[in-house]
Amino acid sequence: MSEKKNEKITSREVDFAKWYTDVCKAADLVDYSSVKGSMIIRPYGYAIWERIVAILDQKFKETGHVNVQMPMFIPESLFNIEKEHVEGFAPEVAWVTQGGKEPLEEKMIVRPTSEVLFCEHFKKIIKSYRDLPLLYNQWCTIVRWEKETRPFLRSREILWQEGHTMHATEEEAKEETLRMLGVYQDLQENYLALPVITGKKTEKEKFAGAEASYTIEAMMWDGIALQNGTSHYFGNGFAKAFGIQFLNKNNELETPYQTSWGVTTRMIGSIIMVHGDDYGLVLPPNIAPTKVAIIPIGKVDEVVSEIVCDLKAKDITYMVDNSEKSPGFKFAEAEVKGYPIRLEVGERDLKEGIITVVRRDTLEKIKVKKEEVISTVLELLPKIQKDMFDRAKERRDQMIYEASTYEEFLDHTKKHNGFIKTRWCGKETCEDKIKEDTTYKSRCIIREVEDGKCVCCGARAKYEIYFGKQY
Amino acid sequence: MSEKKNEKITSREVDFAKWYTDVCKAADLVDYSSVKGSMIIRPYGYAIWERIVAILDQKFKETGHVNVQMPMFIPESLFNIEKEHVEGFAPEVAWVTQGGKEPLEEKMIVRPTSEVLFCEHFKKIIKSYRDLPLLYNQWCTIVRWEKETRPFLRSREILWQEGHTMHATEEEAKEETLRMLGVYQDLQENYLALPVITGKKTEKEKFAGAEASYTIEAMMWDGIALQNGTSHYFGNGFAKAFGIQFLNKNNELETPYQTSWGVTTRMIGSIIMVHGDDYGLVLPPNIAPTKVAIIPIGKVDEVVSEIVCDLKAKDITYMVDNSEKSPGFKFAEAEVKGYPIRLEVGERDLKEGIITVVRRDTLEKIKVKKEEVISTVLELLPKIQKDMFDRAKERRDQMIYEASTYEEFLDHTKKHNGFIKTRWCGKETCEDKIKEDTTYKSRCIIREVEDGKCVCCGARAKYEIYFGKQY
Repeated sequence: MSEKKNEKITSREVDFAKWYTDVCKAADLVDYSSVKGSMIIRPYGYAIWERIVAILDQKFKETGHVNVQMPMFIPESLFNIEKEHVEGFAPEVAWVTQGGKEPLEEKMIVRPTSEVLFCEHFKKIIKSYRDLPLLYNQWCTIVRWEKETRPFLRSREILWQEGHTMHATEEEAKEETLRMLGVYQDLQENYLALPVITGKKTEKEKFAGAEASYTIEAMMWDGIALQNGTSHYFGNGFAKAFGIQFLNKNNELETPYQTSWGVTTRMIGSIIMVHGDDYGLVLPPNIAPTKVAIIPIGKVDEVVSEIVCDLKAKDITYMVDNSEKSPGFKFAEAEVKGYPIRLEVGERDLKEGIITVVRRDTLEKIKVKKEEVISTVLELLPKIQKDMFDRAKERRDQMIYEASTYEEFLDHTKKHNGFIKTRWCGKETCEDKIKEDTTYKSRCIIREVEDGKCVCCGARAKYEIYFGKQY
Repeated sequence: MSEKKNEKITSREVDFAKWYTDVCKAADLVDYSSVKGSMIIRPYGYAIWERIVAILDQKFKETGHVNVQMPMFIPESLFNIEKEHVEGFAPEVAWVTQGGKEPLEEKMIVRPTSEVLFCEHFKKIIKSYRDLPLLYNQWCTIVRWEKETRPFLRSREILWQEGHTMHATEEEAKEETLRMLGVYQDLQENYLALPVITGKKTEKEKFAGAEASYTIEAMMWDGIALQNGTSHYFGNGFAKAFGIQFLNKNNELETPYQTSWGVTTRMIGSIIMVHGDDYGLVLPPNIAPTKVAIIPIGKVDEVVSEIVCDLKAKDITYMVDNSEKSPGFKFAEAEVKGYPIRLEVGERDLKEGIITVVRRDTLEKIKVKKEEVISTVLELLPKIQKDMFDRAKERRDQMIYEASTYEEFLDHTKKHNGFIKTRWCGKETCEDKIKEDTTYKSRCIIREVEDGKCVCCGARAKYEIYFGKQY
């Protein structure tokens, strides 16, 4: 542990919002520019995104998807084809109205999402059942003209992936929707060490134009929810609006079924807000671009070279801090950056054959024999990964409250943040009332139920559901 | 060889421009949409780009560069800071003027390149000589409002990478400029099998705001040039305009020196136009997303499984065409897609233990014993790569002509396309005259010379230089 908490970072107990932006800045994840509402993702932040992209891209390919690249602009007339969709997105799109010196004949939006572009293309390339399923994905930037922005959480420009698939049957499309939700869950639980809840969005909260939207919800350290990804089943609404049809095996025309699904750099916000502490970022080993930081103290070049050589052989990413700063400063820096393991290689310690291994997640210092450094690192990395998930889950579970009456519900919202697990009749009026009374929104429906009462109106409940505040 | 040339593809002898777009479409590389001037990069085209990105990204990292992500918009006032730069780009930028329902207070352009964004950021993060060099790269999409567009060659939206670096000394920045030109040359010669010429752009042709621009020029099958990448040395012009300074070791303020360099999806156009033929695309093995196409004819599942297993073990990408189409149709399809090697695995041939191996580059059919298939593939792949480069180089060299008088120069331009190697006095008036008389533009300066005369005005020559028509 460095001697004192990082001066650049407000304590998360004091001001969690300030703590968050302090960590984003102090760990060199982002910076601001004169482009309002957009962020610069700095090399260390971008390296985390590159890790996420590499992991997900492989999973997408393993599940049969291929990458494509659509235009980033959408002409107004194309955007207007699906009615619900355009109503949902129109308030938050950026308009391009001029190209070079001349006004455009038809103005265009910068894509906020690409359903209509994919549909137009699908109409051209889908002819027969042999062309299905079409399993496409795109890595790109989208634009949503947000008024209030925060790094990674809400930004005018968002790096993301959007999957768009077409299927011959309803069943297959529904399977795909849930399969990709599962891929997101795998990424978030097993790499980002985020315990998540998955379920269905209510009618009110679903994607504009979707028949059903599924969500993956994480709870931040302060008990507030972050929607970390969505997967949508479209039925054949878009396909009908765009006139997409295929010849089935009996040579009859049918309309295909569609899905889309996406995750964004917002997940980096989750990693920060679930695992971070007052010393800075804490990265789970499975996602950390650099797993081990080596801090040489005194003349220890030879031993550092040996360690580096061994880490390379084991394919473990590392950095050596050879800067002119003091050891204490370097420790603090390694803590801010959240490297999972820090090795303090000191001249004095080495005389006794000792190296100090520091876990970033617990700040525990372990003195090991020089010969045991690599085996200790190899043992610790998966242990840190597991411990981080378990601790996050324990904390999250402690902040899930149950409410069977509206009084209990209100009581929870006054006492503490967190998720409230309850029952609901399915009516938007109740959802609206809860939001008005408490600012809590429905997070996701876990299951349909046959018994119990709506926590708000007392009518027969249809769903078990989570409510919570959200970022 | 399939029985006849592909019906979807115009012969390149008949109409090279039509041949090019036919190949782009027939090989499923691109498609069009209602977004004028932009293209859809389809999965097969995008897979080629993914290969290029993977190779270059590794080379960038090996040379010490890190990736970042800047905003895609540039406010008008920021864009206006460097005068030459804004004059160069203003005629071809797209303007965002409205966000959501409201007009923007300050209108913004969609980045045509990101020098000004990087400079604004560099000003914030560069304080001391310890912060230098800063070696940044960005993978992104840029927008240039072109009037006439062609797939990969000229498009309103371009996928590219842009490197931006800052250095303490002029010398170091100049070295970086040439180092990255060398990285491009390595990619293009050793992976894309493109013989290229590198050199310096004339004052007239250099990048708006640069002190010196270096270019990498390929010659297409029809003798027309394609500029396949540029690397710019900025001196400290931008740095001064943005007020970027650092404290040197003596604690004095200095202005750093800057470079930028970029390549785009245009390189895919080069691959097509240098290597393609009337049967379609021909991909060099080192860049082909799929190296081997396997065409089963009859009941040969078991042998195909064995081959697949062996290819996997050797990490050779492959596809098996199990569709319901006829073998002839599948052969033609494999030719259109340009898979470097095709294996025809036929039931009848197998009775004699024979498999037919077809080289895409020469269309040569080689009958080999079943047991020798994998060793043949392993031998052929590097041979095809080398032969493709050698053939392209031979053809290119035959189309480089020399001219020492203006008469000879004009004569060449009337007789044939190609590069003209000649001497030039360095004056823009001569460059302009040549362009007006012949449409030939300067490609690049190879070296300074002390003797000879300008091919145009007859004054003492300063440079040996290439001229050529360009895409």
